[in-house]
This record gives sequence, C-alpha cells and structure tokens, in this order.
Amino acid sequence: MSEAVVPSEGWGVLHLLYTVDRARAEADAGGAKRILDAVASLESDGHQVLTFAVLGHKADLGFMALGPDLVRLHEFQQELAGAPLTPAWSYTSLTERSEYTDDEERARARLYPTLPMKRALCFYPMSKRRASDANWYELDFDERKRLMGGHARVGRTYAGRVVQLITGSTGIDDWEWGVTLLADDPAALKEIVYEMRFDEVSSRYGEFGPFVTGLLFPPDEALRRVGLVPA
Amino acid sequence: MSEAVVPSEGWGVLHLLYTVDRARAEADAGGAKRILDAVASLESDGHQVLTFAVLGHKADLGFMALGPDLVRLHEFQQELAGAPLTPAWSYTSLTERSEYTDDEERARARLYPTLPMKRALCFYPMSKRRASDANWYELDFDERKRLMGGHARVGRTYAGRVVQLITGSTGIDDWEWGVTLLADDPAALKEIVYEMRFDEVSSRYGEFGPFVTGLLFPPDEALRRVGLVPA
Amino acid sequence: MSEAVVPSEGWGVLHLLYTVDRARAEADAGGAKRILDAVASLESDGHQVLTFAVLGHKADLGFMALGPDLVRLHEFQQELAGAPLTPAWSYTSLTERSEYTDDEERARARLYPTLPMKRALCFYPMSKRRASDANWYELDFDERKRLMGGHARVGRTYAGRVVQLITGSTGIDDWEWGVTLLADDPAALKEIVYEMRFDEVSSRYGEFGPFVTGLLFPPDEALRRVGLVPA
Amino acid sequence: MSEAVVPSEGWGVLHLLYTVDRARAEADAGGAKRILDAVASLESDGHQVLTFAVLGHKADLGFMALGPDLVRLHEFQQELAGAPLTPAWSYTSLTERSEYTDDEERARARLYPTLPMKRALCFYPMSKRRASDANWYELDFDERKRLMGGHARVGRTYAGRVVQLITGSTGIDDWEWGVTLLADDPAALKEIVYEMRFDEVSSRYGEFGPFVTGLLFPPDEALRRVGLVPA
Amino acid sequence: MSEAVVPSEGWGVLHLLYTVDRARAEADAGGAKRILDAVASLESDGHQVLTFAVLGHKADLGFMALGPDLVRLHEFQQELAGAPLTPAWSYTSLTERSEYTDDEERARARLYPTLPMKRALCFYPMSKRRASDANWYELDFDERKRLMGGHARVGRTYAGRVVQLITGSTGIDDWEWGVTLLADDPAALKEIVYEMRFDEVSSRYGEFGPFVTGLLFPPDEALRRVGLVPA
Repeated sequence: MSEAVVPSEGWGVLHLLYTVDRARAEADAGGAKRILDAVASLESDGHQVLTFAVLGHKADLGFMALGPDLVRLHEFQQELAGAPLTPAWSYTSLTERSEYTDDEERARARLYPTLPMKRALCFYPMSKRRASDANWYELDFDERKRLMGGHARVGRTYAGRVVQLITGSTGIDDWEWGVTLLADDPAALKEIVYEMRFDEVSSRYGEFGPFVTGLLFPPDEALRRVGLVPA
Repeated sequence: MSEAVVPSEGWGVLHLLYTVDRARAEADAGGAKRILDAVASLESDGHQVLTFAVLGHKADLGFMALGPDLVRLHEFQQELAGAPLTPAWSYTSLTERSEYTDDEERARARLYPTLPMKRALCFYPMSKRRASDANWYELDFDERKRLMGGHARVGRTYAGRVVQLITGSTGIDDWEWGVTLLADDPAALKEIVYEMRFDEVSSRYGEFGPFVTGLLFPPDEALRRVGLVPA
Repeated sequence: MSEAVVPSEGWGVLHLLYTVDRARAEADAGGAKRILDAVASLESDGHQVLTFAVLGHKADLGFMALGPDLVRLHEFQQELAGAPLTPAWSYTSLTERSEYTDDEERARARLYPTLPMKRALCFYPMSKRRASDANWYELDFDERKRLMGGHARVGRTYAGRVVQLITGSTGIDDWEWGVTLLADDPAALKEIVYEMRFDEVSSRYGEFGPFVTGLLFPPDEALRRVGLVPA
Repeated sequence: MSEAVVPSEGWGVLHLLYTVDRARAEADAGGAKRILDAVASLESDGHQVLTFAVLGHKADLGFMALGPDLVRLHEFQQELAGAPLTPAWSYTSLTERSEYTDDEERARARLYPTLPMKRALCFYPMSKRRASDANWYELDFDERKRLMGGHARVGRTYAGRVVQLITGSTGIDDWEWGVTLLADDPAALKEIVYEMRFDEVSSRYGEFGPFVTGLLFPPDEALRRVGLVPA
Repeated sequence: MSEAVVPSEGWGVLHLLYTVDRARAEADAGGAKRILDAVASLESDGHQVLTFAVLGHKADLGFMALGPDLVRLHEFQQELAGAPLTPAWSYTSLTERSEYTDDEERARARLYPTLPMKRALCFYPMSKRRASDANWYELDFDERKRLMGGHARVGRTYAGRVVQLITGSTGIDDWEWGVTLLADDPAALKEIVYEMRFDEVSSRYGEFGPFVTGLLFPPDEALRRVGLVPA
C-alpha cells in the first residue's frame, strides 16, 4: 500500500467523463454494481462524489470526485477503468483559496467544500488571456482584485440559485481553472454565465474551454438512466 | 421515476447527430422500429422532433428534439443509444427570448416554438467575438440592440423562405448560441447566411462553429434513406 | 419516393472522401461493382461524377458528385455507405454564379458546369477573413469587385492548364467556398495557388482549409488502383 | 546490431504515455513482466526511467526515459509496443544547457541529469511567442538573458520543493521545449507554474501545450495501480 | 496500365507515416517481405525511398519516397496499404527550385535531389505568415530575396552536418512547404532549427506544422526495429 499524496493545501478534484460501452455492459452483469461500490467506498473514505448523466454526446456518464488524497482518487479512477465505461474526457484540478479575499470562512469553503445535491450541473475549464493588449498577468494585484470583486458580486446575485466551485489547474491540466456550477434550474446555469460574460473579467480576460452539462442523480439512478442496470 | 427538470423559462433543445452502425443494424431487426417508437413517444409527451438525413460525412442521421423537460429529452437520447447508431456530434441549448425586443408574441414564438416541416435544414453554433478591437460584450445595450435590429431586418427579408430559431447555450455547450435554419430551397440557406455575413453583427462580431446541412424527411423515410429499414 | 430537392439556382455538389475498408472489401466480392453501378446510375440520372485516388493518407478514394437534385445526390452517398468504404472527409456546397460579373455565359458555366477529365485534381475549402484590420465583409462592393477582378486575371493566365470551379458553402459547410482545380500537370496546381497567394484577395483576405490532391482515373481504374477489384 | 545514435551534446528524452489495453492485458499474463524487464534493462544500460500513473483520462501510464543513445531509447519504446499498452501521447526532446548561464555545473546538471524520486510529476511542452508585438526571437540576447534570469529566480524560490528539468525540442517535436516538474506536494506543481505565469517570460512570451499530471511509483507498483499485475 | 503523371518540373514527394498493426503483422508472415519488395521495386523504377523508425508515438515507421511519376508513387503507397500498417500521417509535395537564386546547379539539386543516408531525420511542414502586420506575401520580391538569402546563409553554416531539402506544397497539402532535414547528429537537427528561429524569415514570417523525428535505417533493419520481421 502506498502512502497518501495530500496537497499541502486543498483537495484533489477529478471530473471524469465516460461513454457507456454497451457491448461490455451486457456481458458484464456485475459492472454497474462495481461502479456503485466504487462510489460508496470512496465516500466512506472521506471523499465526495457527484454522479450525472450528460446531455448530448460528449459523454454518457460523469463523476466529480474530490477529497484529500490523490492516491485514493486515482484508485477510484482505476476502479471505474474496470467497469464497462470508455473514457471520454477528464479534468484534473485542486481546490484552492481565492487570493483576492482574506475571508477565512470563504477560503475554507473553497478549499474543503461540501457539495450540495442539485438537479443540474455544468463544468468548464478556463484561462485568463495573455494577449498584448489584454494581459491579465500584467495587471497589478489591486487591479485584479478590483476586477474579481465585480465578478464575485455578479455571482452573489445568484446565491440560492447557483452554487459555484472554482478549482485551480495551472500546471496540472490544460487550462488554469475549472468551474463547476450546480443549480436546480438549468436556465440559471445559462443566465449566470451569460451575465458574467459582460463583466470585464470574462469579456476582456476570459478564455473558455469545452462546456459539459449534465443532470445530477443519485448514483444508482444515474447508472440506470445511462443503461447500466445493477444485476 | 425522477421528477422533470424544467427550465424556469424556455425549453431544452438537443441536436443529436449519428452515424449508422451498419453491422449492428443488420443484426438488430428491431432497431429502426425502436427509433421510430422513441420519436413517437417523445412527441406524444409534448415535445417535438425533426428528423433529417445529413449531406456529407459529418453524420448520417440527425434529430432536433425540443420541449419542456430535460429529463424526458435525456430519456429520448438514451433510447437512441440503444439503437444501431453511433454518436457523431451533438449540441445542447435552451430556447430563450431575445433581450432586444419587448414583443411578447415574438418572445413566445422563440421560447415555445412550433417547428414547421421544410425540405432542408442547416444548424450551426456561434459566439460573439471578444477581441480587444471588436468586443461585443463591451458594447452598451443600445448599441447591441441597434446592431441586432439591422441583423433581424435581413432575416425578415427571408420571411416565408427561411424559418430561423436561435437558441441559447452560454454555459451549456461550447458556443453561445445555436442557429437552426429551415427552408424548402437549399439555396436560401446559403443566401441568408451569406447576406448576413455583410451585416456588422456577423462581419465584425460573429464567430462560427461547424455547419451541418440535412434533408428533412418524415422519421420513417429518413431512417429508410440512411439504410435503417423497420423490420 | 421523395420528390427532388432542387436549389432555386445552381446544383448541389458533394466531395466525398473514403478510406478503403480492406477487410470488408475482401469479404464483399460485389462491393466494387456496387460502387461502379452507383456512379453509372447517378450519371445516367443527369448528374456528374469524378473519381480519384488520393495521394497520401487523408483518404484512399474520392468522388466529386454534382447535379440538380440533393435527394439524388444523397442517394448516391447512401449507396457508397453500403460499399466497403469508410468515410474520411466530405464537403458539401452548391454551385453559384459570381456576384462580380454580369457575363451570363460565365454564370451558366459556374452554375451548370461540365467537368472535363484531367489527370490530377486538388480541392480545398476557404473563407474570407473577418479580422479587424482586414475584413472582407466590410469592403464595399466596388472594392471587392476590383480585387476579385485581379484574382480572376491570374486565373485566366492558367487557361488551358488549369480548370477552376468555385462553389458556395456559406451556411452549408464549415467554410464559405469550395475550390476544385483540375489539371494534367500536377505542378500547375501548385503554381496557380502559389501565384494567387501574392494576390491581395488571398494574401490579405484568404483563409484556407485542408487541401486534398488526387489522381483522376476512370471509375473502374480508380477502384482497381485503391485495391477494389470488381469480382 | 546498429551503432548508437548519440547527440554531440546532451541526452535523448522520451515522454511516453499509454492507455492500458485491458482485453490484451487479461490475455497476456506475461505483459506486465515484459514492461518491468524493459525498464530494468534500459536502466542497466546507463539510461534512466521514471514511471507514473496518470490522473484523469489523458493516459493511464507514463514513462519518462532518458539517456545517451537514441537507438537504445527507441528499443525501449519498441519493447513497450509489445506490451498490452496503447500509445496515448508522447514527446521527444534532447537535454540541453541553458544558453543564458556560463555555470558549467548547472550545464552538466541539465545535460546529464540524475532524476530524483518524488511523489508527483507534471509535464508540458511550451514555445516562445513570435507575435508582432511580443516576439521573443526578435529580442536581443541581453534582454532574453535578463528576462530568463528573473524567471530562474522564481524557480529557485521553490528549491527543495520542486525539481525542474527543461529539455529542448525545436526541430524535434511540436513545441520548442519540454518542462518536467517533480514534487512530493502536488500543490507545489500548481503554485510554481501559477507564480511563473506572472513573470514576463511566461505572461508575455509563453505559449503552452497540453499538461499531464501523474503520481510517481516504483515501476511494479505503478503497473499494479493501472491494472497490470505481473503473473 | 495508366500513363505516368509527371510534373512539368520537379518530382513528386510522399512522406508516409504508419503505425504497425501488430495483430495483422503476426497473422501475415509475408507482410514485411512485401514492404521490402515495394521499396526495392520503387527504387528499381528510378525513384528513391528513405526508411525510418519514428521516435515517440506519432508513428512507428516512416517512408520518404520521391521521383518523377505520381502514378508510380501512388502504386507504392497502395502496396504499403496491403501491408500490416495503419496510416498515421502523410505529407504530399513536389520538389521545386528556389525562386530566389539563378544558380542552375542548386536548382537541379533541389528539383532532382539524391538523398544521402544519414542516421537521423526530421520533417515538418511550414507556411509563411499572412498577418496584417507581418505578411510575407505583401513583401516585394527583392525584400523576400534579401530575407531568404540571410536564411540560406545560416543553413550553409551547417553544411556537412545537416542536409536540407525544401519541397513545395502550396495547393497540394495543408502547408506551403515541407522541410526534410538529415543529419548523423540529432543535436544538429535541433540546433539548426533553433538558430534559424532567430532569423527574420522564421521569427517573423514562419508558421510551423507538426514535427516528426526518426532514426534512419536500411529498410530491412527499420522493419525489424519496429517489429516487422521478414518470414
């Protein structure tokens, strides 16, 4: 057994997207149960998992798994590799505090979040622009803080409708941050991102990766809805 | 059974594109009938479906499905996953009103549209440019409204020849809007998009994704034309 | 049987590229004959087909099919789907007149062309640039006409060496035009495109998609050269 | 036997990423052992290998192999081709001295490095920007040296937490350099790259390719963790 | 038999890259011999072939084939299609003289080259930039000649260490030129491309495609090194 790999601050986060391998699923009566066991086992080890069915063809099934130990998160990923699932996409990040607020409670909520259960989720990675005439990384700290403050104010007008979690991936995956949005109302996912696009942080400095949208279900129902019925 | 996930305003829209899995189709005599049943069932549940055969190799068969409940639309997607079809591409969006008109009748027609049957369809996603010297999201509302008004006037000169439906996908899929055009004359699809390209909204602020063009048929004929014959 | 879908002006054009599925070809003695029958049948229905073997690995076999009825062209595409061929790429467009000349004879030659048999072909799609400092769609008509006139003059110096057909695909496929060049001398394909690249229309306003080059053969010889021998 | 191909200065470096072919692995009891033998044999021939399990779906298993002889490194790559592994991505580079320091000890450490064992690794390729208003290759040597000096100072503040190895790939692979970072603390991988992004060398002149993050293990444990158990 | 298709000036050039289909190779004892026969036969018909093993996962095996007849080169490509090889990438071009020198001997050496045997090869395609503020095609001939002269001078400082062949592909493949570099010292491949990157032709006007690097071997040894052993 290998010792845990725990970040000095924050948790590991894996967004794991799969298509269902229907031929393998039909031949593997225990496949769905193994997935459910993997989810339950990871949660019993002090990590969290959200399970969702993806709208459209980017994937069939998605998991957002997070918690302190990257070795344990990798074991979860590996257990899913033994299920009748074909990897479609993934994103790796770490939770992190915002550098623009000293509020320790907010920092804790971002570093060690408790994800609520909502009906819908969207996820997308993003970076800040480094163009000659719009270079985020050439702004000084106070200007970045001012801009992020306005951005956060838009976010807070959606309090109660949309839960946001921003995680960091500079040096870890292809974009600099991952954004997970949770809402009961799918229109709210569209409205918040659209409204923020007029905010200077997004309009001038945001570069966006692919967007994935899914419907959140309890794990067993998510699996049934994508054709994976426990035997 | 899970409760419906209904946007607080507007409907869900799935553009689902498939290639036919000919080997599976030959071994699965009931495959075509299951697709037709899935279409009929979704329509009987208060949703709409257009079925089209795709020109060229981007896909063989396409469905545009829309209606109030994202859970029901996902069930339709899942029923197609059980047919001898391989996903080729998809686009997920929500109907939405234009923010640039107060006309309630037009808003209703965009939020809760009734799609007519035409002979040809094209679909493409698009975003508004956020370049330093041409940033749509830095224009004020009145300027955007003025520009969109000119754009809409071009569209209205095609009234009777081309039906347009603009749906919103900011935060939902990779582009900010989806554009569906329906016409009996395929040349009209080319003419309207070409003419609009000279309009400042497109020439200066439009960024366009992939374009898919198809021939609309009743579902059973569409399936027959792509080699899926009900047993 | 479905009625024809005929553009109000011009013809449909499909560039269809395939790799040969060698395993299926060996097991399907009639595959090559069905392809030849599909070509002959489309031609007997008032459409044209060029058949070519592709240089390099973008595809093995290509067809350029054009004519008045998009439903008939789709039937041809569908007949090829039943052959031991795997789609590699395609491009969908419509013939169109140039808006920059009033010459009715030239318009007819572009709308309803008769393609000659040459030894080599290249095809590429292209768009006009819409950058802030080089936006084709912000030029007025007279300026565009002047620029296109210079471009056409370069083309005419290749009269007899290179046959060009420009087809329109705005709103139909991912680029705004498709360019098909036919020549007996493959060096002429390179020379004309290189020389035009210095012309302002290309140097300043041209954006180019992928280029495919092939050797034209009569259909039966093309098939034999890519390993599809009629039984 | 072919003679060695040894660079006149520096070593060859292969970053080799694979997904596990589970079907083949189950049918090939000796597959894992052959991989371990290949690693041991390469190391006994005076080369080094790091083995890591990849977080997320970019790959399952990665090797970083380096040493003097490109023919020997290719033999290692070829031995892995006989294992139940499917290539996912790779990067080819050569170790090189920095042109901006005369320190011979540092040059030796970059040309002929000894890689330490840490818990986590990230790898990404990068190039320097050649935009009109930010063209690294139009700066004179002294300005580049000044900028790289500041960059190196940031790196040195992570001494003891992060080990960096920059290798050169201009003319060899798609980007100009490969960056390998090793750390026990995965948060340190994020922090160093994020902090450097504010440095002018990155903020203004850096272009970054894909990022891969993995957990380093001894070869036998890495294989077991990705489902390859020696028989 | 079809007549040859010979460019009015220059030769055809195919860079053909393959992965080895190991399952097919094991079942096809004669596969390696057919490849060797195809190479020998093409060479006996007045064409040249270089065979190389690729470093990294872009491909396993590469051939650079060149000579007067495109039909004959296509036959070679087709013979390889019958071997246990899967196409990975390719590039099609024609040899051409430089327009910037009147030296007839150099022109002949570029139009009808004799490729030497070296230990290592790299290949990459490239285009000249057409940005508004750095547009190669808007420079006049004398300025382009002056710039290319400086570029060539850098190249000549590598005489004896690196052999370069520039071939033309405007209108033929996706980039405007193909660059093949041959050297015994792999570090020389990196050094020459790196040094040229500071030259204005590259720093300001060069756009580069993918880079492939391989080890050159006699055909039978190359095949053995990628796991294709003649029966």
